[in-house]
Amino acid sequence: MYVVAEKDIAGLMTPEAAFEAIEAVFASMARRQAYNFPVVREAIGHADALYGFKGGFDGAGLALGLKAGGYWPHNQERGLINHQSTVFLFDPDSGRVSAAVGGNLLTALRTAAASAVSIKYLAPKGAKVLGMIGAGHQSAFQMRAAARVHPFEKVIGWNPHPEMLGRLSDTAAELGLPFEAVELERLGEEADVIISITSSFGPLLMDDHVKGPTHIAAMGTDTKGKQELDPGLVARARLFTDEIAQSVSIGEYQHAVAQGLITQDRIGELGAVVTGDDAGRGDAEVTIFDGTGVGLQDLAVAAKVVELAKQKGIAQQVEV
Amino acid sequence: MYVVAEKDIAGLMTPEAAFEAIEAVFASMARRQAYNFPVVREAIGHADALYGFKGGFDGAGLALGLKAGGYWPHNQERGLINHQSTVFLFDPDSGRVSAAVGGNLLTALRTAAASAVSIKYLAPKGAKVLGMIGAGHQSAFQMRAAARVHPFEKVIGWNPHPEMLGRLSDTAAELGLPFEAVELERLGEEADVIISITSSFGPLLMDDHVKGPTHIAAMGTDTKGKQELDPGLVARARLFTDEIAQSVSIGEYQHAVAQGLITQDRIGELGAVVTGDDAGRGDAEVTIFDGTGVGLQDLAVAAKVVELAKQKGIAQQVEV
Repeated sequence: MYVVAEKDIAGLMTPEAAFEAIEAVFASMARRQAYNFPVVREAIGHADALYGFKGGFDGAGLALGLKAGGYWPHNQERGLINHQSTVFLFDPDSGRVSAAVGGNLLTALRTAAASAVSIKYLAPKGAKVLGMIGAGHQSAFQMRAAARVHPFEKVIGWNPHPEMLGRLSDTAAELGLPFEAVELERLGEEADVIISITSSFGPLLMDDHVKGPTHIAAMGTDTKGKQELDPGLVARARLFTDEIAQSVSIGEYQHAVAQGLITQDRIGELGAVVTGDDAGRGDAEVTIFDGTGVGLQDLAVAAKVVELAKQKGIAQQVEV
Repeated sequence: MYVVAEKDIAGLMTPEAAFEAIEAVFASMARRQAYNFPVVREAIGHADALYGFKGGFDGAGLALGLKAGGYWPHNQERGLINHQSTVFLFDPDSGRVSAAVGGNLLTALRTAAASAVSIKYLAPKGAKVLGMIGAGHQSAFQMRAAARVHPFEKVIGWNPHPEMLGRLSDTAAELGLPFEAVELERLGEEADVIISITSSFGPLLMDDHVKGPTHIAAMGTDTKGKQELDPGLVARARLFTDEIAQSVSIGEYQHAVAQGLITQDRIGELGAVVTGDDAGRGDAEVTIFDGTGVGLQDLAVAAKVVELAKQKGIAQQVEV
């Protein structure tokens, strides 16, 4: 078994490599060569933790395994990050475990890569302004991945806690882009591409905020009850997601479905846009990508990082 | 993270330690201090493999994690065993992975320990004859664990392929017990305790085979369709299992339930017998333990083996 430590991931994995891995696995999913297993997610009744497994098998990339871990809300008090996860890969030819990889940074990178894949394929032609909703830990990864796939000229941003906006302005500066803090009304009006990455439990971006051709990557909703978008906005947009079943149960689309505003057959797979089987934006004014996060994404970036770690000779080998 | 290799397990884990770990976790389950997560089990469409995860959390023993792996039917052709699994333990206070442990031998030991716990608590008084149905890889572990908890005087055995009975006679000899190969009719009549550990898909031991006070540990049925016992025998016995929901869906009791011969409320938990909350055998003539195998068993023996490996200084430490 190879082990790649969390501390080594930052030096190994690039946004480029993450993008390629995620683009490829979305295509495998659309071609039905890869599928995700049922998700296990449990409130274990200890330390207020949520713990579980997201697994899958990619028969094209030959990645088999799972991400295990979860959310420990009191970790921060002890100097640990609250989201903790590890990815385990298995040899699909023998069932033997082949790798254990720290999953914390990889989760942020694969989530940002999914959003970037959606921007590459769905952003309106000539998009110039990137709107960021949310300024938490993952927002910087999101902005960097988006800037890599599209030549934005400006970033505007909003966060429920304005004192955190420094992260957005710092990241924009690092990318050589001007940044402006704005209200949601202006953000919806001016941004051509919007990334929302919050842990909101109610709609933030409303239907009448959004004007003109816009692509929205809704990345924050991964649980029953969470919500970032006005269901009316969802109802008038062209809809994409990573996994349809998940988007209508725990993703952003759960609300529009529950209110009877959309049905599941309105939702396309981003992977089918990648393969060319779905025309993508077409003549739609607003497109939305509901990034719910699937186990195959974790396996794809973990497999890539193991490959890179072996090349650089920093994969630890241990007998299990 | 500590790693304990498969090759080191045999020198670390004893049937005694496995028995204590399984007895304790069954008690935790009955006290509702420990619970199993939903099982993920997938035919992945590659190498004819079945792959999945069995997880759980024991709030008393503070064991959190899962066993991942499955059944690769073509492994044997390449000199590997077909059942391959690895147990991963997590720190319930932080969510960080704490150990990876080879799960192949542990699976045999924890299955044998479960059967032995049932024999300790449910065997008829003065039981002398142990009947073995099945002579595959796990049968030797089962016989050894049974002999440790009860002073049997003789072993009798049957197997669908008689040429494999040497494993049973060899194991009995190792335990200093006489062995005799018999037909199922005689086995059911003479044995006071019966362990069935086959991969049968139809009833082997029939209701009219079994005479007098008998305890049956039915350990082979872990999938829809598998079956070792006549549902009529199940219907007249006092019934116990490790996990009721599993026993009626993928365990031995699935058939008697499907035929309307029993309802779920007839089934008790072995853990409640361990804690004294269930009287156990009472005046029943026949008792059955349906050992379906739960993730908590795997976590319990893996946690024990990590403790022993640390004590002996052979747990490999690796940063993840």
